[in-house]
Amino acid sequence: MPLHLIYHPPGLYSASEKQALVDDITGIYTAASLPAFWVVVIFRPVAASDFFVGGRGPQSNFVRIVVQHIARNYKPDEVAKMRGFMQKYNDVIEPYTKGKGMHWEVNVDNLPSELWVVDGLRPPFGATEEEERLRRVWAEKNEVVLEGYSVPPIEQTEQSKI
Amino acid sequence: MPLHLIYHPPGLYSASEKQALVDDITGIYTAASLPAFWVVVIFRPVAASDFFVGGRGPQSNFVRIVVQHIARNYKPDEVAKMRGFMQKYNDVIEPYTKGKGMHWEVNVDNLPSELWVVDGLRPPFGATEEEERLRRVWAEKNEVVLEGYSVPPIEQTEQSKI
Amino acid sequence: MPLHLIYHPPGLYSASEKQALVDDITGIYTAASLPAFWVVVIFRPVAASDFFVGGRGPQSNFVRIVVQHIARNYKPDEVAKMRGFMQKYNDVIEPYTKGKGMHWEVNVDNLPSELWVVDGLRPPFGATEEEERLRRVWAEKNEVVLEGYSVPPIEQTEQSKI
Repeated sequence: MPLHLIYHPPGLYSASEKQALVDDITGIYTAASLPAFWVVVIFRPVAASDFFVGGRGPQSNFVRIVVQHIARNYKPDEVAKMRGFMQKYNDVIEPYTKGKGMHWEVNVDNLPSELWVVDGLRPPFGATEEEERLRRVWAEKNEVVLEGYSVPPIEQTEQSKI
Repeated sequence: MPLHLIYHPPGLYSASEKQALVDDITGIYTAASLPAFWVVVIFRPVAASDFFVGGRGPQSNFVRIVVQHIARNYKPDEVAKMRGFMQKYNDVIEPYTKGKGMHWEVNVDNLPSELWVVDGLRPPFGATEEEERLRRVWAEKNEVVLEGYSVPPIEQTEQSKI
Repeated sequence: MPLHLIYHPPGLYSASEKQALVDDITGIYTAASLPAFWVVVIFRPVAASDFFVGGRGPQSNFVRIVVQHIARNYKPDEVAKMRGFMQKYNDVIEPYTKGKGMHWEVNVDNLPSELWVVDGLRPPFGATEEEERLRRVWAEKNEVVLEGYSVPPIEQTEQSKI
């Protein structure tokens, strides 16, 4: 959680600009006590000849960001919270989109927290108070901490099903 | 909204075939009074050695399309509407899949309209009548139109949450 | 259904390792009587300079797998079933992640079965007993079998809507 896929024109960002953008994105989540190492950002260069917006191509002035949230989800009626996040996210990325003369579009998806594995473990995303505590430990150390982690039981009979 | 990611064998489509396919996809949405510039199509060439279907690889005769709908969503019981869309979408892409001797697969996801930003704005996707009106203006001009657009209020206290 | 997108450092897997990993993934679904040809695996090499985890980059020791389930979905309360699947999936991929000195993360999304087309047809994913039967035939033959397949009716009036 979260995954940020950034589709952009090749060469748009220098190495240091990528690092700065990633720092800013990651900061949104660490400010909310999520472990930094849960934040994955993948840049995907798209050749102009493969990029079409509004039926028009080739495009070399568009950035399309697809975000997946897993550890935290919005309930359908949490509209203010959703808008608040999008406002904050947009503030973070504008220097790297508008600031570079690009058009841009972002959307966020809500994915099921239980269908998630990090380094072989179900992360403590916050289903219980104990998990909340453990998540803060992971966030503080910025790595998987096995002390206090107990593997959630799986009903063996369920293992053969999809 | 919508985003169309088309995973295909490298070199399958000429520049003019890409343009024609994009025109046909975009037409589905403009016919429904959505602004053309909301439609993003990204072609993603996949090397045969990276493409596996049914356990078999390398593949060079398969097209996999992943579609994300954001402005409009189907309710779980709108089965006829969903089938109608898939039929229409398939009719549009068959010349570019079956017609080129490819196998193909498409699926569409429903994403939350409130978790969406275009050029820094929450698009008028249709939550109110005023938004419907504004969406038609955007569709007609095929660009962001600020006249009549008012930024939806965000509760400031919500901004720090994820 | 399912789609497995595997974002990995370039050159991490040999051709035979890719095949072995795909065989193991595909086996999960065929064991559950799903047709092998429904399983699509796409490897996506990501240059180190485009890969950031926890704010740190360039990364060349991380594998990020995004899975989409379409034919089968978990209901929100089927937690044991979800954990069972993730355990099984992790067991399958660990030799190709942990076993190669990589960190890794996987998540699975649930996508609407009705918004899905394979080779121009709505697959018999199991909405009825007849579909269950037909799915087993497709699984056995490992291809589309038209005998016994009837196109689900679409209300024509719905075709113009999105």
